[in-house]
Parts: sequence; structure tokens; C-alpha cells
Amino acid sequence: MARVRQDHPGIPSTTKRWDTDVHVLVLGGDGFCGWPTALYLSDRGHDVTIVDNLSRRGIDIELEVQSLTPIRPIGERIRVWRQVSGRDIGFVRLDLAEESDRIIALLREQRPDAIVHFAEQRAAPYSMRSPDAKRYTVDNNVRATHNVLNAMVVSGSDAALVHLGTMGVYGYGWSGSAPIPEGYLTVKVSTPDGDIAREILHPANPGSVYHLTKTLDQLMFSFYSKNDGLRITDLHQGIVWGTQTPQTIRDERLVNRFDYDGDYGTVLNRFLMQAAIGHPLTVHGSGGQTRAFIHLRDTVRCIEIAINAQLNQEAGGKPQVFNQITETHRVCDLAKMVSEMTGVDVAYLPNPRAEADANDLNVVNDQFLALGLRPTKLSEGLLEEITEIAGKYRHRADHTKIIARSIWRAGMRTSADLVAELPAG
Amino acid sequence: MARVRQDHPGIPSTTKRWDTDVHVLVLGGDGFCGWPTALYLSDRGHDVTIVDNLSRRGIDIELEVQSLTPIRPIGERIRVWRQVSGRDIGFVRLDLAEESDRIIALLREQRPDAIVHFAEQRAAPYSMRSPDAKRYTVDNNVRATHNVLNAMVVSGSDAALVHLGTMGVYGYGWSGSAPIPEGYLTVKVSTPDGDIAREILHPANPGSVYHLTKTLDQLMFSFYSKNDGLRITDLHQGIVWGTQTPQTIRDERLVNRFDYDGDYGTVLNRFLMQAAIGHPLTVHGSGGQTRAFIHLRDTVRCIEIAINAQLNQEAGGKPQVFNQITETHRVCDLAKMVSEMTGVDVAYLPNPRAEADANDLNVVNDQFLALGLRPTKLSEGLLEEITEIAGKYRHRADHTKIIARSIWRAGMRTSADLVAELPAG
Repeated sequence: MARVRQDHPGIPSTTKRWDTDVHVLVLGGDGFCGWPTALYLSDRGHDVTIVDNLSRRGIDIELEVQSLTPIRPIGERIRVWRQVSGRDIGFVRLDLAEESDRIIALLREQRPDAIVHFAEQRAAPYSMRSPDAKRYTVDNNVRATHNVLNAMVVSGSDAALVHLGTMGVYGYGWSGSAPIPEGYLTVKVSTPDGDIAREILHPANPGSVYHLTKTLDQLMFSFYSKNDGLRITDLHQGIVWGTQTPQTIRDERLVNRFDYDGDYGTVLNRFLMQAAIGHPLTVHGSGGQTRAFIHLRDTVRCIEIAINAQLNQEAGGKPQVFNQITETHRVCDLAKMVSEMTGVDVAYLPNPRAEADANDLNVVNDQFLALGLRPTKLSEGLLEEITEIAGKYRHRADHTKIIARSIWRAGMRTSADLVAELPAG
Repeated sequence: MARVRQDHPGIPSTTKRWDTDVHVLVLGGDGFCGWPTALYLSDRGHDVTIVDNLSRRGIDIELEVQSLTPIRPIGERIRVWRQVSGRDIGFVRLDLAEESDRIIALLREQRPDAIVHFAEQRAAPYSMRSPDAKRYTVDNNVRATHNVLNAMVVSGSDAALVHLGTMGVYGYGWSGSAPIPEGYLTVKVSTPDGDIAREILHPANPGSVYHLTKTLDQLMFSFYSKNDGLRITDLHQGIVWGTQTPQTIRDERLVNRFDYDGDYGTVLNRFLMQAAIGHPLTVHGSGGQTRAFIHLRDTVRCIEIAINAQLNQEAGGKPQVFNQITETHRVCDLAKMVSEMTGVDVAYLPNPRAEADANDLNVVNDQFLALGLRPTKLSEGLLEEITEIAGKYRHRADHTKIIARSIWRAGMRTSADLVAELPAG
């Protein structure tokens, strides 16, 4: 499992040698995207170790909410996976933001080929919820990312670092009719000698403290890639929908988390869950916001594609950036579709976010398509699958957690509960 | 001392009302720029409170080095200032990165009109010195800045936040023959409907982890100014030279710090000190690096100008950015000038920084000039003043601390000591 160019110096670095048996650390591997990614990579023959401090479960306790699906403790998850697949997944409980020395020791000991970095507080509404939540989001996300980069330098790692970023770093409506490029933008700068072309990171336009931290990550990636030649790929992901993957459905005890609350639930999953329990579909503002989406099954595939792409190129370039999205939709169109499918009404609520009432969105995602991604598109069949999961676990829903209550600025309005019901005892 | 527009609603916000009696917190007010700024603002009739965790003195202990000038403890400094000026300066010992709740309480209690933010680890070589120093620089600087912003929002402060940034956020040689603008750059973006003009933050090109943290600060400022309407001014300062101001010379016990070591000493001050003790002038690489400079006396004036400019405009715009520099010089030209003045040789040493061997530099600094700054230019008279200070305290110099030893990448070379001598006992 040492790196290709060391084992096989005669093989050009563009030769694909990394389809299986990559030693991968999945940072944040107990979370919504991390867990199915860990299982997918393990299923594909890679050697996976999850690194997680279980903070996401801790936030459930803080918010007095739980995954609609009954997720099992990480130890049980890993034991069940061994039973059903015959494959081992390692687990290290470690706080990346706080325990910088342990990360260095871990990289020295494990010498991973790839590091997938999901280990950040990932909800925009949570990041705006309170001064403490803002502080936690910045302190945790920035330090976790920097500690990983620092540890890679100290330990001499030339692993592929694949980081989960967000489409939200670009903001919306900035580039007129031009599509949002994949990370970099060529602009013209006026000089006394005429215009010169310069490639820049797309200017940062974050819409929340959470998104802000991902723009800070980008600058850290640029610096460490330039100064230390680290291999880094940043995935600007859209909103994830779906819950299960072919791996997580192999045993109920492997079930992935399903968030439906106002802070952590993602918009389409929330609509599907709301439909399943007969709760009005909660649209904020006019619903004219256009967003980019990706199914969870594609997320896990993209991670492996990104690892391979990074390992099969020369080290030392600038960070590789992929837009990890497969389609775009207006929020009100999604609500209408789910409403028509299920007969549940749409409720238009005050928007607690500081954002444009409506926007267009045109995103380039050529790189993943060229590398073989076959998108899982929104279709009634898939939507129904999620509705069924939501239906199956509807008794676990706390209806008082559905309305989004985190506001972007003091004085903003939110809705009262539309249907207030505690989970069945 | 409440804000103008509240006291005098009839006075247009452009009327200058802030020349005296502003209640200012000086974060990092015990440091090299912070201390003379606190004294200057106090001398000008403002009500000053220093907030500092004395970390800079702690780093002296860690590096086993001390200011060439015999700086006194902060309590003594403040007592002496009261004796010589009749004016009180407050002091709060507080760690901005760690004690977020105490900052909120402080802003609620003091309701400052302005906050000057020097409270960051400010040496590029120190920030590259070790994994721990990199981590400390990021953790300290990012959290300190974010905690201040967060506390301003929570406490409803509409104080002017004036932050000490660095010219290093721009990098060197990026914009061809165009001068470096003040913070923002208008670029052309291609779209299917033709080019559109967009004003962007000048792309970040940091040259060290220290400079990186200042580029992260910029993004936090943009976000909090947009989302919360905070008043923020970011000063992109050049390399400071000089030691004393008209305030710090009023009593020897008010003397400002003078760093000559390889991590914290700034280039011109190092040359002047080296000349005073007969040590070869340490140029890294060819000395073809062109850098921007400002005298400490102008730094303190700029801070007051920036406070006034921010308080006299409407709140809620984007952060105001000034280039706080007065002249540019090539490092080798400075060395040659000091060498000719003093007869001391120039030593060309390996460059421990990852940077271009030579660069041009053309910087716009129109705003401060328009607001009344009369630059203190490099002249032999001034240089001699510093040489005298260095001469007066030369017995305190530890010659083994002069050579820069922090390297940007593993394996880089540094020089052996040219003259190794411990301070006189």
C-alpha cells in the first residue's frame, strides 16, 4: 500500500493503480456522509480507519433531538459490518481540533495513502444559532483542518487529502450569466500595460459562519499545497439528499442517520420526512432559492473518484477542486413535486437566513462526469424510497424540532410550530 | 462618549467629531506597536484601556531572548505614564483566543467607541518555526479575531474595529505592472453576455502561516460586516521600523520594545542594531526583495486617522482597507545604506523563506495621505536615532540570537552564528 511511484517507478503516474487497497483515514467517519463513505470504501476493497470524536452525537444531545433512523453506536456499527462483509474497519476516537499531537502520532503510525476529511461542524443554521455555536464552528473547523495539514507536513505524509467543502463558498448570483466554475476563475486585471489574465480562487461569498469556515479552509489548502507540496482535493458539495447506500441497507444496524430538525436536516430530506408524517412542507421565504443537489450514493462514489484522481497525478500542484453536484432545483419546485406526490400542503414561512429571495444557479461539474460519475437523478422511485424510511420511523419524530429556529441576525422572525407532537412513548 | 449620531442626530455623519475623547480598547496594547499606540491615543486625549494576555513577553521566555531595550512590566509602564502625563490607562489581562465570555462581558461593561486589534502572533519566522508555533499562530490569531467579532455582535457594539493586517496578504508580483490597490481590486469576469466588472478582495497570496492568518481575518471581516453590519477597518501595514515615539521617550521606563532576534526583529531595525554592535548585516538571499516600510511614529498616527475615518462614515458598508505604508525599498539597498553609514559589512546568508529572490513592489497608499498623514521618511537622522538606542543597550544583546533559524520547509539551510557572544553579565 505504499505509493505507486515508489513501488513502481517505471509506471507513469497517470496509470490507474489505485482502484483498490488504498489505506484511507475517514475523518468524521461516524457522520451522515462519513459513515456511508467508510462502508463504501471498505466494500470496494480499501483499508479504512474511521477517526471521529463523536461530536455529532453530542450535538444531538445538546439540541434534544435524534436521528429519525435508529443509528447504532460506532462500535456496534463496525462489528455488524464485519459480520455482513467480513471486512474490518478501524476506529480511533480523537478530537482533531484539540489533540494535535495525537493526529501527528496517528499519521506516523498508520501512513495512510488517503485522508478523507469530513470532520467539521456542517450545519449552517447551527453555526448561526448562538454565540457559542458560532465560536464552536470556527474553533473546531479551522483548527481541525489546520491540525491535519500541519500533521501531514510533520509526518512527511504525501497522502491524498480529500476535503468536503461546499458550493456555499461561491455564494449565489455573483458571476452573472457565467456558470460557477470548479474552484478557479480566470479574470482580467487592468495594468498600465493592458489587461493581464490571472487565475484566482473563486472569490469567497459565504452565507453563514459554517460556510465562512469552508472559505478559510480553502486558503489554508492553497498555502500548504504551495509551501509544502501537499496533495489536496477540495470537493464543493451541493446539498445531499437520500439516506441509504447499498452498504448501509445490508443490515438495519448499519442504517445511516436521517436528520429532519431545523438545524441539521437538509431541505429535500426534510420535505420527504414532513410528507411522510403529514406535516406541511416548510419553505423559507418564496422558495425561489436555487440550490445544487447530490444523492448520498453519488457522494460516496465521488470520494473514491477524487482519491484516485489525486493519487494518479503529480504532487505539488495547486489544490484540485471539483464541484460535487449532479443537478440544481429551486426549493419551491422541490416542495411542489413532493406535495403533488403526497398531497401534503406547502407552508411558506419567514426566512431566518440573510439571503436573496430568489437566485439562478448554473454550475459546472464536468470533472466528475469525465471521471466516470453516473449521476443518481431525482426521480419518484428514489423519493419514495426515502419517504418509506421516513414512514417506517415516523414514530421517532419530535414535531417540535421541525421548524427552523436559528436566525442569521437578531430580531428575525421564525414560525411557531405548525404541528407540535412529541415522539410516541 | 456615546456615538456621534446618537448624541447629535442633527450632525451629518461626515462631520469630524472624533478627534478627542474616544473610548478605545487597545487589544495587544503591551506589544511593539500596541504600547506606543496606547500612549499616543492617551496623549491625544482619548480614554484608553489596554487588553493583553502578555503573550509576547511569554514568547521571549520561550525563545530565551529579550527586548534589547529594558521594557518594564505593564503595571509599571501605566503608573509611569500617569506620573508623566497625568492620564490614566486601564489594563485588563485577558486571553482573547480562550476567554470568549470575558470579552463579551468587557464590551458590555465598557461600551468602547473603538477597538484597535493588535492581538495576534505577528512574526512570520516564528509562525514557521515548528509545528507547535504554526498551530499556535492559527489557533490564537483566528480565534482571537473571531471572538472579538462575535462579542461585538452579541453585545450590540457599533464600535469601530481597526485591525492590524499586513501587506503580506497581497503577496508580491501578482498584478504585473499594476500597483497594489488598497484591499479591493476590480477585475473583469467573462460571461456569455460579455465581460462584467466585479470588485473583489485582492486575491490572497500569503507567504507564511502568520500571513495566512491575516488572509483568514479578511474573510471573517467581510462576513461579519455583511451579515451584522459591523464597522471594520483593516490596515495592511508594511514593515515597521523605529522604536520610540514622542510619548515613549518621556521616561526611560516607558521605552518601547526593540526586537533584534531572527524571529521577531524587523529587517531595518535588525540592520541598525547589527551596525551598532559591529555585527555583519544579515541579508537573506540576494536582498532583491522589495518591501514596504512605515515608521512606528506613523503607525500610531494612522491608527487614530483610521478610527476617525471609520467613525465618521455610515456603518454597514464593506470593510475599509488602507495600505499602511509610506515607502518601499529593496532589502539590499537598505543594507548598503546602513553599511555606508557605519562601515559594517553586509553578509549574504541562505534565505530560510520560500520566496522569490527578487521582486518589484508598487503600492497605492492614497487614502492615508488624503486623510492627512505626513510620512516620516527614512533619513540618516532617524536612522542614527535608532543606532543610538541600539548602542545604548548593546550590552543587553545576545549575539547567538541574531541569525534567523526558522525555516519554511524541512531541509532548508541557515547560517551558523557569525559572531557568538552572550550578553555582558
